[in-house]
Amino acid sequence: MPTPDLAVIGGGQLARMMQPPAIALGLRIRLLAEGPDVSAAQIVPDHVVGDHTVLDDLRGVVDGAPVVTFDHEHVPPEHLRVLESEGHACRPGPHALLYAQDKAAMRERLGALGAPCPRNAPVASRDDLEAFGFPAVLKTTRGGYDGKGVWVVRSQDDADEAFASDRPLLAEELVDFRRELSALVARSPSGEVRSYPVVESRQVGGVCAEVVAPAPDLDPALAAEARSLAERIATELDVTGILAVELFETGDGRLLVNELAMRPHNTGHWSIDGAVTSQFENHLRAVLDLPLGGTDARQPWSVMVNVLGGAVDDLEAQRSVVLAAEPDVKVHLYGKSVTAGRKVGHVTAVGDDLDDVLSRARHAAALLTDG
Amino acid sequence: MPTPDLAVIGGGQLARMMQPPAIALGLRIRLLAEGPDVSAAQIVPDHVVGDHTVLDDLRGVVDGAPVVTFDHEHVPPEHLRVLESEGHACRPGPHALLYAQDKAAMRERLGALGAPCPRNAPVASRDDLEAFGFPAVLKTTRGGYDGKGVWVVRSQDDADEAFASDRPLLAEELVDFRRELSALVARSPSGEVRSYPVVESRQVGGVCAEVVAPAPDLDPALAAEARSLAERIATELDVTGILAVELFETGDGRLLVNELAMRPHNTGHWSIDGAVTSQFENHLRAVLDLPLGGTDARQPWSVMVNVLGGAVDDLEAQRSVVLAAEPDVKVHLYGKSVTAGRKVGHVTAVGDDLDDVLSRARHAAALLTDG
Repeated sequence: MPTPDLAVIGGGQLARMMQPPAIALGLRIRLLAEGPDVSAAQIVPDHVVGDHTVLDDLRGVVDGAPVVTFDHEHVPPEHLRVLESEGHACRPGPHALLYAQDKAAMRERLGALGAPCPRNAPVASRDDLEAFGFPAVLKTTRGGYDGKGVWVVRSQDDADEAFASDRPLLAEELVDFRRELSALVARSPSGEVRSYPVVESRQVGGVCAEVVAPAPDLDPALAAEARSLAERIATELDVTGILAVELFETGDGRLLVNELAMRPHNTGHWSIDGAVTSQFENHLRAVLDLPLGGTDARQPWSVMVNVLGGAVDDLEAQRSVVLAAEPDVKVHLYGKSVTAGRKVGHVTAVGDDLDDVLSRARHAAALLTDG
Repeated sequence: MPTPDLAVIGGGQLARMMQPPAIALGLRIRLLAEGPDVSAAQIVPDHVVGDHTVLDDLRGVVDGAPVVTFDHEHVPPEHLRVLESEGHACRPGPHALLYAQDKAAMRERLGALGAPCPRNAPVASRDDLEAFGFPAVLKTTRGGYDGKGVWVVRSQDDADEAFASDRPLLAEELVDFRRELSALVARSPSGEVRSYPVVESRQVGGVCAEVVAPAPDLDPALAAEARSLAERIATELDVTGILAVELFETGDGRLLVNELAMRPHNTGHWSIDGAVTSQFENHLRAVLDLPLGGTDARQPWSVMVNVLGGAVDDLEAQRSVVLAAEPDVKVHLYGKSVTAGRKVGHVTAVGDDLDDVLSRARHAAALLTDG
């Protein structure tokens, strides 16, 4: 295999969706995949099967690759520091990635920056929780995702599972939010920053169900504040690649930072079909320190709806049904087997009329999910 | 490797550009490539190196693939008939492909259909040419492309090279055309047909230089006539996949068919970034008999400019220059080494103002071609 331009650690759908823009730009990806037929390994020729927690597996895949980036945030930071010391540029680097890996570190750092956050405190004991007060949201500081490792507690009784996890916990104020927003930004090592239009993210059971771009009826001043906040966080934390800043819009019209993710993000999938440059292309451009592409939307409305594993077992057979029913909706399948609730694909509709766009995207996703 | 959904014969840029929509739709391509590092072989994991003129090489790659399609029109029809007899669906089939392979057969068939063509006649001798009259265009009936195998002859002296080629020749009227148009259509085996907006194709030295979609100032009646002509030819010739009908618009406002191509075509590359469904996605959908996607343009204007091998040797190094200069232009590189005049990539700009779109696309292409 020829020398790769970059190594990507992790073979999920985010790595898979980096490959089309890599093909267009003539960039060669080498992949570290969890197995021989995981989502991205199916379509990236130059892949190695290995374990991202094993330093020698990481060394094997980055050999010859000047830049390393990620499908997820789970590579141990100590391994990344070794790779850096051996001359590989990790983007984002472990010093930035820390704030996507550790929620306590993230809250402390954002607090120091003056970024608006829910009231929060580390919780080491039942007494700490009592002192924080109820209701509260308890989160494991590391390893949670898609609603896992998160508990809403209204009394000590609700906290049993959280304390039984025997992991460091953070308590946060239960925010009375109107909706969830997401501000995505791409940043390169040279410091170029470009943010995307702010979107509304609609969650079901802690999992992103659909995204509307831009967020409907969002006060332009609040949208500008969200973008400038995301740009400032990316710059202050020295993030490279895509940073997603998940936000609460409160009932009284304020923004609060909920989570940070340092990789292409589910709330940016709409950009593949809806923006001048997709988040996946801009992630590649950013981590390789290439100039960034335009982030404007290409039409008034884009709606992305996730396809979660449901009643439909055979996505390939169902594909022709959805293509016939919605010939203008873009269908993205991840090459994954269907299990209940698993993210196995997404669909995106674009257009001038939000009701129409929403209804087409939901219809297409429902056909792929439940038939 | 898992069972492929289809086999693609030929590893050039057309096969390469089929892979991104195949990834999105979850379709697995197996490729027959001319060499281990040709354009498409770089990015299609499941590829076999072989010769498309050798029946056993074809048999090796189509093994297990229900459908076979093509990057070019050069597979011998007798081999395709064998593959068909062995249970593989060739799309397009040899009975249709004949009319893209043999210009004399094409002219005869289009004449029988009443499709408007330049006056033409087979030419077996100097006397035949004299009888046809001057000026004329002499073409080899097979194997010409990008201006090769085509001679404008104003006297017997101009015809020396054509006759020296010792190949069957066709004489055609030298058309006094205003410009060249192209009408693309996708057709599936079930008979579903969708045509794209008619584009203007600007050639330099017989090679496509740039494409404007839609063709500026085209009489809507003529545009409708071109689309319906392309749809009718696709149906009558039983084409499956993409058919490109290259047309002359004459000075007096008529259409004449110039050439047919039965595969994704250079005049349709704009559709990747400019249409609801790209020609590459619709080619895959068509040959697999999946429902076709919408073919409308997504904005008023799209301009595609080819990147032909020029003064720039190192396209990868020049990439950052063009991305910085034109952040909203989409850059497509084919992974090919640069030689003079070779198609090594293309760029597409889209927008509301034709002059602006043209100037951005030309600027980007010039930076990649000549620095």
